[in-house]
Amino acid sequence: MTSGEDSGGSKVMEAYIIGVGNELLRGSTVNTNAVFMAQDLVRLGIGVKGMLNVGDDMNSIVSGLRFATSTANIILITGGLGPTHDDLTREAVSLFTGLPLVFSEEALENIRYYFSLRNRPFGPGTPKEAFIPKGAEVLRNNVGVAPGFWVRYNDRDIIVLPGVPREARDIWENIVKKRLENLYSKNTPVFTLRTFGLGESMVESKILDIIREDQANVDILIGEPMEIKLFIRGENARDIFERIKERLGDYVFTTEDETLAEVVVKRLREKGLTVASAESCTGGLLAGKITDVPGSSEVFKGGFVPYSQWAKKILGVPPYIFENGDVSLEVAENLARIAKEKLSADIGIGITGNAGPSPGDKTKPVGYVCIGIVKDNDVFCKDFQLEGDRLRIRSLAVQWALDMLRRSV
Amino acid sequence: MTSGEDSGGSKVMEAYIIGVGNELLRGSTVNTNAVFMAQDLVRLGIGVKGMLNVGDDMNSIVSGLRFATSTANIILITGGLGPTHDDLTREAVSLFTGLPLVFSEEALENIRYYFSLRNRPFGPGTPKEAFIPKGAEVLRNNVGVAPGFWVRYNDRDIIVLPGVPREARDIWENIVKKRLENLYSKNTPVFTLRTFGLGESMVESKILDIIREDQANVDILIGEPMEIKLFIRGENARDIFERIKERLGDYVFTTEDETLAEVVVKRLREKGLTVASAESCTGGLLAGKITDVPGSSEVFKGGFVPYSQWAKKILGVPPYIFENGDVSLEVAENLARIAKEKLSADIGIGITGNAGPSPGDKTKPVGYVCIGIVKDNDVFCKDFQLEGDRLRIRSLAVQWALDMLRRSV
Repeated sequence: MTSGEDSGGSKVMEAYIIGVGNELLRGSTVNTNAVFMAQDLVRLGIGVKGMLNVGDDMNSIVSGLRFATSTANIILITGGLGPTHDDLTREAVSLFTGLPLVFSEEALENIRYYFSLRNRPFGPGTPKEAFIPKGAEVLRNNVGVAPGFWVRYNDRDIIVLPGVPREARDIWENIVKKRLENLYSKNTPVFTLRTFGLGESMVESKILDIIREDQANVDILIGEPMEIKLFIRGENARDIFERIKERLGDYVFTTEDETLAEVVVKRLREKGLTVASAESCTGGLLAGKITDVPGSSEVFKGGFVPYSQWAKKILGVPPYIFENGDVSLEVAENLARIAKEKLSADIGIGITGNAGPSPGDKTKPVGYVCIGIVKDNDVFCKDFQLEGDRLRIRSLAVQWALDMLRRSV
Repeated sequence: MTSGEDSGGSKVMEAYIIGVGNELLRGSTVNTNAVFMAQDLVRLGIGVKGMLNVGDDMNSIVSGLRFATSTANIILITGGLGPTHDDLTREAVSLFTGLPLVFSEEALENIRYYFSLRNRPFGPGTPKEAFIPKGAEVLRNNVGVAPGFWVRYNDRDIIVLPGVPREARDIWENIVKKRLENLYSKNTPVFTLRTFGLGESMVESKILDIIREDQANVDILIGEPMEIKLFIRGENARDIFERIKERLGDYVFTTEDETLAEVVVKRLREKGLTVASAESCTGGLLAGKITDVPGSSEVFKGGFVPYSQWAKKILGVPPYIFENGDVSLEVAENLARIAKEKLSADIGIGITGNAGPSPGDKTKPVGYVCIGIVKDNDVFCKDFQLEGDRLRIRSLAVQWALDMLRRSV
């Protein structure tokens, strides 16, 4: 028994996540199941000891199970539940636990139901998916053929789900997450904060005294570029949450589970304001990020991507503005103003910069980005020296633009 | 010794990829290093036996190393090389191999160089990053503080890289990949093909007879949405490559290591053509994807994001075009024509569609997307019924638009 006891005397629950599938090992697919399960487990206060991806072979799955059960008491496995001879997870669990595979009427009923939903004929013979280890519980799959199953073995929970993310998620949300919460979660509320504009170590140093003084259970996670997520748990969580929130001030952009773009769209909608963009170095990515949010059409009037100086002139940026080149606060402000006016929006936002890789001059090196916002008669302009490669600089520029928008609404 | 011998008598090389970092276990970061390394290893003909993510604690790293070395002979570790007390990878490798950590002048020089580049002061004392296991080789980091290192241990290669993807990639591309290729790759040429527009199983079924007949070593991997990568290896690889290439015809968009957007930009540049876009449902993502490519400013004149019907009218789409609503082949063609004309480009591309989540009507359900291209006097228009959630539909629409562009150039 590797997992210990916490100070309260209750067992410390630790999970191990295993993904089964050759495609994971070739880098052609990322194990997104591990990501959403881990995020939920953090919220439930269940630690993840490790994540493992193995191929579709018996030895690898069994030795992975052995390794995982030696350090954790909740084992979550996804993948390898399909009908082909490559799908070996149920056989591996049977081999590892010594529980034989037996026919399950409930599993068969699940499979039949799925076929009937799709109006597909149900062939003769018993499908492989109807067999599960003896004593295991069937976990109903509402969106695919193969049900999952849950085995208790040696004081461990071995929970097996299909690999298709939609199916894994369905069973996870409807059954597994709730069950784990009832069984193991300490049922203390979790408070969330997200900040933008500070690095992880800056956030940490700003609140280190609060964490130390109160021995608070605070998780600090990195999100999107320059975005930090904080989870606060424990008995005095609400008090600590309030203190941290006050300390981090307007770096905090939400206390809920939402992205910066979602917050911007929500605020614009609440205030009945609309926005329009004109972006050069980010080439449409800001508009893309805003319109990722469902319902953004209510607040986003549209955008321009004047990628060349020439396109900026066509758009109406007066030629004298380019005296200092394509990248300047004046150009950013002009782009914002033109976007606002041409599209009759309440707010215009303009971005111009040098994302590389071709080097700029001394005053406009790679990573130099100017962002302008025009709202009524107010103008906010700011320049940034961003670090990283082309993709990173562009993505940071979009994030900073969203944050400036948030602060201006 | 778990790794076997292949029929040629040479040792089978198998790799294990370990990511170190609590953030990986919380689902706040995906181990992207594992993804690009795995993809390259496939190309080199080195199999990946497993991928493991462990937290920042000594026990987990050491037991992970033990587990990995029991099944593979190349161990790639990323993360845990930083300056804080949480960074334990070098200590864990030292503990596991029994090789003490010793000061390395070469490592220190690497660190000094990085500080000098950034004009940052170099404090007193010897930084932790200058220590590596005795006998290890320093792997120069050009873009960050901590160099990596390479240890030979018990007939295994243990290769340790920083966790920051930019830094891991730098060392991987400049040193590790080439070295592994020289050391272990079977030196048979690898031929590459990438297709767009067919699913994995469609590609497979089209070429199954070639693969079977010649017992060809063909890896089929999923890339971006609707994009499939094929790697062909072995003695008669060139012949098989030519046959597969002919069979897959114009679904093949490249035989090199490049993306669809890169191919489009390259072709436009070769032909001296320029393009401009007007995108509604994809909200700037097509422009963003094109301008992700360095040097795209030579061929991309700019774009419009007329997200509302109103913005489309402002742009100049004649009102009668909307008789069938916002989403129709006519609107797509008009958007393309306006983009081309307003920005004086050789080619205009227009996209309109319903990406959801709000349901459309019967003729324009969620996922219905129209794409139009206008080039000289030619017009190509096509409509699609795409499946998936909002993000997937938008990303598929961008990919199809790029493919239509590729075919029209």
